[in-house]
Amino acid sequence: MLEALAAKPERLVIGIMSGSSADGVDACLMRLRGGGAALSWTLLGHETLEYSLKVRDLILSCAEPGGGDSESICRLNALLGELFARAAGHVAARVGCDMTAVDLIGCHGQTLRHLPVPTSITGIPVRGSLQVGEPTVIAERTGVTTIANFRARDMAAGGQGSPLLSYVDYLLLRHRSRGRLVISIGGVASLTGLPASAPPERVIGFDTGPGNMLIDSMVTRITGGREWFDRDGRYARRGTVLPAVLDRLMQHAFLQRDPPRSCGREEFGRPLVDAVLKEHPDARPEDLIATVTRFTAETIAVACRKHVMTHHVYEEGIVCGGGVRNGFLMEQLREAIPELPIHPSDDYGLPAIAKEAMAIAILANETLLGRPNSLPSATGAARAVVLGAIIPGAGRS
Amino acid sequence: MLEALAAKPERLVIGIMSGSSADGVDACLMRLRGGGAALSWTLLGHETLEYSLKVRDLILSCAEPGGGDSESICRLNALLGELFARAAGHVAARVGCDMTAVDLIGCHGQTLRHLPVPTSITGIPVRGSLQVGEPTVIAERTGVTTIANFRARDMAAGGQGSPLLSYVDYLLLRHRSRGRLVISIGGVASLTGLPASAPPERVIGFDTGPGNMLIDSMVTRITGGREWFDRDGRYARRGTVLPAVLDRLMQHAFLQRDPPRSCGREEFGRPLVDAVLKEHPDARPEDLIATVTRFTAETIAVACRKHVMTHHVYEEGIVCGGGVRNGFLMEQLREAIPELPIHPSDDYGLPAIAKEAMAIAILANETLLGRPNSLPSATGAARAVVLGAIIPGAGRS
Repeated sequence: MLEALAAKPERLVIGIMSGSSADGVDACLMRLRGGGAALSWTLLGHETLEYSLKVRDLILSCAEPGGGDSESICRLNALLGELFARAAGHVAARVGCDMTAVDLIGCHGQTLRHLPVPTSITGIPVRGSLQVGEPTVIAERTGVTTIANFRARDMAAGGQGSPLLSYVDYLLLRHRSRGRLVISIGGVASLTGLPASAPPERVIGFDTGPGNMLIDSMVTRITGGREWFDRDGRYARRGTVLPAVLDRLMQHAFLQRDPPRSCGREEFGRPLVDAVLKEHPDARPEDLIATVTRFTAETIAVACRKHVMTHHVYEEGIVCGGGVRNGFLMEQLREAIPELPIHPSDDYGLPAIAKEAMAIAILANETLLGRPNSLPSATGAARAVVLGAIIPGAGRS
Repeated sequence: MLEALAAKPERLVIGIMSGSSADGVDACLMRLRGGGAALSWTLLGHETLEYSLKVRDLILSCAEPGGGDSESICRLNALLGELFARAAGHVAARVGCDMTAVDLIGCHGQTLRHLPVPTSITGIPVRGSLQVGEPTVIAERTGVTTIANFRARDMAAGGQGSPLLSYVDYLLLRHRSRGRLVISIGGVASLTGLPASAPPERVIGFDTGPGNMLIDSMVTRITGGREWFDRDGRYARRGTVLPAVLDRLMQHAFLQRDPPRSCGREEFGRPLVDAVLKEHPDARPEDLIATVTRFTAETIAVACRKHVMTHHVYEEGIVCGGGVRNGFLMEQLREAIPELPIHPSDDYGLPAIAKEAMAIAILANETLLGRPNSLPSATGAARAVVLGAIIPGAGRS
C-alpha cells in the first residue's frame, strides 16, 4: 500500500506542526508532485488551531525543565494526537477536500524535551528529543498514512536532530545566482544559509538561540499568565533596552558554541526568565521585555555575521515563522543587521505562518519516497538518513 | 523497499521484548514463512541481556506511579534503544547470522505507563500506553527495518492495547479438537482462551492481574533492594500464607472488573506493596512473600474459572513467561486450579522464556504484510487494526 502511494505522480499531503511556543497547532494541505530536487508544490490551505489555556498549561508543565511525569506525558501524548487529527480535519474541510482523498499526513509533534548533547549513562552516550502527539491516533481518526518522529533518526546517526527545516529550505528556496539566508523564528530561531547554486552539502543550518520563546516566557511571567506573548511587540515598544541585562544575556553559554548546535526550553525557557527577574527585581516590565526582544534579534544577527556571512555572499534574508507577526522584533532585527535586506517569506509564495507545517508535509513526502531527508551539514550527523516512523493508514482490512 | 521485504517467501525476524518486570531484555531470532493462519515458523535462537542495577533503577524510577520526568524519559528512551540494538546483535551472533541477512526487527519497548481506562481532558477522552526504547536507534545501528509501538493503534481504535499476546497465541497454539488456555506470566499475567476450532472472534484474552510484578516488588522492598525476585520461590516456600492479607488483596478493585481489562504497575506496583507493609508491620517477610505468591496464583485461577472456563471446555493449560521459573508459584497455580492440567509452553515447542519475544517478532511480520494483528475480542477495540510504527532500515542511500 505504501508502494502504491509512493508511485502516484502527485499526492495530497497534510503537514502538522506544533511549535515550541506551544500556542497552537498549524496544519496545511499541499499538493506535492515528485520529490527531492524535482519537487513541485502548491499550498492549498492552512489553518491554525489555538490551544486552550488548559492544554497549553499541560504542555508547558511537561516541557519546562524538571517538568512532567510518565503519566501526564502518556496522557498528553494521546490528547495531542486527538487535537492534531482535528487540525488535519479542519484544514481539509477549509480546502473542501474529503479526507479520503488525502494521501499522507506528516506530523512533527510537540517537543517536550530536546537534548542534542550526548551524556553518558552506564558508559553509553545518549542524546534524544521527545515529541508527543500520538501518530497512531492521527492515522486511526483520519484513515491516512501518517509519518512522525522526524528528529530521532538523525540523532541516532550522530546529529543534533535539528534544524529540520534546512533541508526543506534547500528544496524550496535555493537560487542559482543569489545567496539566500533563511531566518525561521518559531519558539527557537534557526538559520539556513543557501549560498548561490550551492549543493546540499554546502548548505549551513543551525539554531541561533531563542525565537519567540524567551519573549513569551517573560510576558507570561510578568503578567502572571494573563498574556502569553507580546502582541506585535506592544510591551517592548514602550520599554527601553537595559544594556547591562543585554550584555549579561549575550554571555549565555549556548551562544559561545560553534554549529552544529540546537537549543530549546532547556536553554531559553522559564529558568532563564526567573534568573533575570531575580537579578533585576526593580526593572520595569516593559524594559525587560524590550531587552529580551533585542536580545533575540541580536543573537540572530550575531549568528548571521559570525557563522554564515563570513563564508559566502548573501543577497537577501528571508524570514518566516510566528516571529514575523512581532513588528517590533522585525524592526530590531533589521536594525541589528542592516547589511542584509530582509523580506518575509510570503514574498516568495511561502506564508510565514504556514511554512513550518509545509516543511513537515514535504519531509513526510520525502520519507514516503524513501529519500534521505536530513541535512548532515546542518545537524552534524554522520550521514543523511530517511527520517521518521511510518504508521499505515486505514489498511487493507 | 518495504514491498520487496513483504514479497519474500520467508524472512529472518528478530523479536525484542522488555517486560514490565524490568529485569532485562529478551531477544529471539525466528525464520517466518508467510503470515496469518498460514504462518509457519522456526525459532533459531534466543538470548536474554540482563539490565545492570543502574538501568533497572532508571526504568523503575520512571515506571512507578508518579515517577519520571520528561528529561529522564527522553534519555531512557535513547539508552534503551541502544541496549535493544545490542540485544538484537547478540541473538544474531549467537545464531551465527550476519545482521545484513536479517529482514525485520520487532520491538515491544519498555512500558513506563499503561492507562487503558479513558479519562477526559478538556472534554476529550484519552487513554494511552507509553513504551520507550527508541526504534530509530535500533534501525540505525542494525540497518534493519524496525517495527515498534504496537499498543497505541489498538488504543486509538478504542481498545485496551492489551493483551497483545492473544493474537499470537491464536496463530501458534489453536487446536482443532482441544480447548487450550494459555497463561502468560510476565510482570503482569494474562490469559488467552482458545476454544477448540474457534475463529479469532471467539478467542478470549485479558489480564488476570499481577504476574511476577507484585512478588518482585515485595522481595525488593523487604530485602532493601539486595534482591529483585524470589528465586524459584525460595522465600515463599519458607513462609505461610496469611489468610487475612490474602482476603484483603482479593478485594482489589481491578479483580472485580469484567474483561476487557488490562493492568500494570499502576495497580500492582510499589504503592500496593507499601500499603500491605504499612497495614501489617509485624508480619514475617517470608509470610508476606508467600501470601503475594498465592495471591498471584489465585487471581489467575479465579479469572480462569469466572471468565473463561464457564463458557467453553478447556482440556489443557499452557503456561509461559518468566513466572514459569518460580517453581513455588507453579505449584500454587496447579493447587489453585486442579481441574486444569497445566504444562509449560516448552512442551509445545515454545520456550516459556522466549515466547513474548517470539510474539513480537510475529506481530512485526504481520504488520509488514499489512495484516490486522490486533484481537478486538481480547482488547475491546472497535475493529482489528494493523499495529505499530514502521522505521525504514538502512534505506536506499
